[in-house]
Amino acid sequence: MSTFNWPIRVYYEDTDAGGVVYHSQYLNFLERARTEWLRDLGFEQTDLCDDLHIVIVIHSLQIAFKKPAKFNDLLTVKSSLLSVGHTSWQCAQSIVRHDKVRGDEVLIEAQVKATFVNAQTFKPTRIPAAILNVIPQFTSQSTPQTMEPT
Amino acid sequence: MSTFNWPIRVYYEDTDAGGVVYHSQYLNFLERARTEWLRDLGFEQTDLCDDLHIVIVIHSLQIAFKKPAKFNDLLTVKSSLLSVGHTSWQCAQSIVRHDKVRGDEVLIEAQVKATFVNAQTFKPTRIPAAILNVIPQFTSQSTPQTMEPT
Amino acid sequence: MSTFNWPIRVYYEDTDAGGVVYHSQYLNFLERARTEWLRDLGFEQTDLCDDLHIVIVIHSLQIAFKKPAKFNDLLTVKSSLLSVGHTSWQCAQSIVRHDKVRGDEVLIEAQVKATFVNAQTFKPTRIPAAILNVIPQFTSQSTPQTMEPT
Amino acid sequence: MSTFNWPIRVYYEDTDAGGVVYHSQYLNFLERARTEWLRDLGFEQTDLCDDLHIVIVIHSLQIAFKKPAKFNDLLTVKSSLLSVGHTSWQCAQSIVRHDKVRGDEVLIEAQVKATFVNAQTFKPTRIPAAILNVIPQFTSQSTPQTMEPT
Repeated sequence: MSTFNWPIRVYYEDTDAGGVVYHSQYLNFLERARTEWLRDLGFEQTDLCDDLHIVIVIHSLQIAFKKPAKFNDLLTVKSSLLSVGHTSWQCAQSIVRHDKVRGDEVLIEAQVKATFVNAQTFKPTRIPAAILNVIPQFTSQSTPQTMEPT
Repeated sequence: MSTFNWPIRVYYEDTDAGGVVYHSQYLNFLERARTEWLRDLGFEQTDLCDDLHIVIVIHSLQIAFKKPAKFNDLLTVKSSLLSVGHTSWQCAQSIVRHDKVRGDEVLIEAQVKATFVNAQTFKPTRIPAAILNVIPQFTSQSTPQTMEPT
Repeated sequence: MSTFNWPIRVYYEDTDAGGVVYHSQYLNFLERARTEWLRDLGFEQTDLCDDLHIVIVIHSLQIAFKKPAKFNDLLTVKSSLLSVGHTSWQCAQSIVRHDKVRGDEVLIEAQVKATFVNAQTFKPTRIPAAILNVIPQFTSQSTPQTMEPT
Repeated sequence: MSTFNWPIRVYYEDTDAGGVVYHSQYLNFLERARTEWLRDLGFEQTDLCDDLHIVIVIHSLQIAFKKPAKFNDLLTVKSSLLSVGHTSWQCAQSIVRHDKVRGDEVLIEAQVKATFVNAQTFKPTRIPAAILNVIPQFTSQSTPQTMEPT
């Protein structure tokens, strides 16, 4: 399955007094990457909201904090689709750091389920066909996964 | 002039890798205190928005970071009104830490000008009379200040 | 099993343009509650760090975002221990909102595994005996859970 | 005086329930730009800290919130030096939005005074000569400004 990579620089705002990135901040990094992934596919969330009254909300997620990132680190968020349902999809995302000595280190591993909802009612709504049409390029090298994630 | 005090506990989320509270986080502490001050006066910002379509936005501020706060500190935000105009007011706010040895230390000093605006157009709108009516209790011990802050 | 309750007020800083609390912010609410829980048990994390060189880091977590919280909501974080190992423990945490009409609503459900580590090396270290000694009061009404969570 | 430009994309994490960027978040945008400015000049703050035990802290700032930024906006932070003293300097920073219809709009105007301090004692320390040496390229087109900002 193809993977979308997005770079993230760690600034002071992202760190805490333990000297490392504060744990909830990784969720922001993951969402920035998902936003840029959609943009890279040709979809602006502002258009989704203005034209189709759709916003994408996080249904649930699992995350493992394997190694800490530090101030000034340059990280990469790697994102790929795990499964696509009628109103939601599930992504696998990881955050890696490129270290000259130690090579690539996986700092974060996460699975995120996002649901497309109506912007007013927050009720689930079908993923727009225009988006579904561009997804195969992301899943063509994997076995079909069409079941709604639980 | 009377002062409204609000306690703030510093959590890890508020700190950065320098071991102290990240500088922009103090602005959040100041706003929490202003929100609780209005609530203490009997005004919920949700009612202001739902009933009068008014939101309060920050026009400008000056802030001096005199000493750093640390993880786990228990701080007090002190707020008082400096001046009240037709559509905006200006507050003096400070953040102090109570230290058993050193006594009260002033960590932050700020002046914040907030404007009442229409929730849709963001255009300035008059401060509701109901709010102006309760303000004298805050300014009764000071000389009248009715000029619009610049 | 006994539960520790901690109130959280939602401020503007916690919300996003969708009109609801930004998803990663709930993790901050959960950590505030865990910090206050330890304090309520008699342990300050500053002492843990200064005296025993121990900090508590998040190993992994699962979280379900069931209903959104809004600006000005008064929430309660409910925390209880699920299991205790040599160097880590696992908590169940939920965030509920008290609504006059709808009663208590569960907004968030989470399981969080935290590990005690050395503040310099970030290597796992045993949970201090002083802390383990006060845990039974939290687990006395439940069946013993002594296995290291996976 | 030459100006350093740095792009900032607005994500959901930066916004609040008013539908616009939360006011304190602009301070984070300003700091990201200052960090990238120093990096562009050849200085990593991690090296400053590790090699010279110097960190840069914010002494004080003034900021005017002229127009709100929104989700998905692509902004530019413009930074230039106003004055350089022995242990601190003062920058002028603005945040602008490029709008196809309205042209460039200035959203934020700020003046930020930053102080170089010892990483342990937080006492002011001289700006390293290596940094002062590269500053003239930023100030060569302006009149000399060597006075310590007040």
